[in-house]
Amino acid sequence: MTYCLGIYLEDGMVFAGDTRTNAGVDAVSKFRKLHLFETPGERMICLLSAGNLGTTQSVVTLLEEGFRGEAEEAECTLYDVPTMYDAALLVGQALRSVTARIGHAPEGQDADFSATFLVGGQITGRRMRLFQVYSAGNFIEATEDTPYLQIGETKYGKPILERVVTPELDLTSAAKCALVSMDSTVRSNLSVGPPIDILIYERDTYKAGITARMTENDPYYQMISRQWAGGLRQLFDELPPPPWGPGAKQG
Amino acid sequence: MTYCLGIYLEDGMVFAGDTRTNAGVDAVSKFRKLHLFETPGERMICLLSAGNLGTTQSVVTLLEEGFRGEAEEAECTLYDVPTMYDAALLVGQALRSVTARIGHAPEGQDADFSATFLVGGQITGRRMRLFQVYSAGNFIEATEDTPYLQIGETKYGKPILERVVTPELDLTSAAKCALVSMDSTVRSNLSVGPPIDILIYERDTYKAGITARMTENDPYYQMISRQWAGGLRQLFDELPPPPWGPGAKQG
Repeated sequence: MTYCLGIYLEDGMVFAGDTRTNAGVDAVSKFRKLHLFETPGERMICLLSAGNLGTTQSVVTLLEEGFRGEAEEAECTLYDVPTMYDAALLVGQALRSVTARIGHAPEGQDADFSATFLVGGQITGRRMRLFQVYSAGNFIEATEDTPYLQIGETKYGKPILERVVTPELDLTSAAKCALVSMDSTVRSNLSVGPPIDILIYERDTYKAGITARMTENDPYYQMISRQWAGGLRQLFDELPPPPWGPGAKQG
Repeated sequence: MTYCLGIYLEDGMVFAGDTRTNAGVDAVSKFRKLHLFETPGERMICLLSAGNLGTTQSVVTLLEEGFRGEAEEAECTLYDVPTMYDAALLVGQALRSVTARIGHAPEGQDADFSATFLVGGQITGRRMRLFQVYSAGNFIEATEDTPYLQIGETKYGKPILERVVTPELDLTSAAKCALVSMDSTVRSNLSVGPPIDILIYERDTYKAGITARMTENDPYYQMISRQWAGGLRQLFDELPPPPWGPGAKQG
């Protein structure tokens, strides 16, 4: 599995992805899922991937080295596309191209070759945009009403995003929120694991602002994880007992 | 969808289930998923159901009105089975019988007739047991290491169980924890909704101790939900910002 998320704010964007990949619990390895396509001062595009590793690596190669999309006259990379909308289109087309080539699993084998992506960023003179590309190659966009998108194991990390993320949130708090969301997922799903890659983009800078990789021994990550766990437990203990509980009968 | 859980403790057991059923978002209705089979002073068996409503209702009917299991010589109900292990066997057999009868969806229709159950309780002179019956009719049992079982939409409500539930937990705290787990699920999945049924069983009493149904207007449920939401937000705000965040650069 995988967990990646992108947060779309007035001040900029925050991207986060784990690095665990597995083909069964007996074949666990580490692969980066956060990919940066950057021409500093001109464009910053961040791509996050989930799903079949063979598929996602092939798609990333096409997007880096050049690929002729369905509507394109020449080969194109994420360094060339004129708009973020074209970036999302290109990711979808690269994905369709790869999955069409692989097709179905050979007879008697059970394999899922599908993949999904988040692609967000900004190109000079244009606004920031954040898209989620589905396995069919179609895509949706984050908006004010839903200012974050997730791929992979999305459920464990969603409650904190729902409670905290609004378009007005500052970038530092959003990065902290992304980390808590990651930590909740890592704790509940063995197939999502550190190191965790984080990228913070400040609007209209056209370059990756801050990139951080947090291992499980990272002091800040450990502190957030411990403080959140302890705080949750204390919060639970402070909730009043139900008026109809066994304790109430004795009172 | 559905969310039901059973918690197995030294002092007794806590069961909780939501009541929302849907066949698409345009066909939402209310059905009890917590079923009590009780002969006070002799046995208390609680059954919780998730999955296809046609299937679960048929299974409950068989378990109430009598059904001849694969290894039984005569018809049997959950009021007759001599042990909790036999109760789990009977639930599994009733489920297999119903799904065998329905079989697959008619040609051209896409329907899932599967269902899962939790069945827990105690019969005079025997120990408490809690089982999860899978859609295939096989089952597993809660133990000290994993003192709770869930069916339906399990992910949103799992983190609080993982952090709080141990076999030594008192029944009142376990009921509170079940409610927080339910609230987290209700907030994140529209297809899980109140009223919420809760049953508390005290060990060696052989009768349902406390049963409560909480509507969304229940003052205690509202208070827990509000206090938990506010506390989480405050806990998040109190977490220190990342040392590598944009704020750190300006400092």
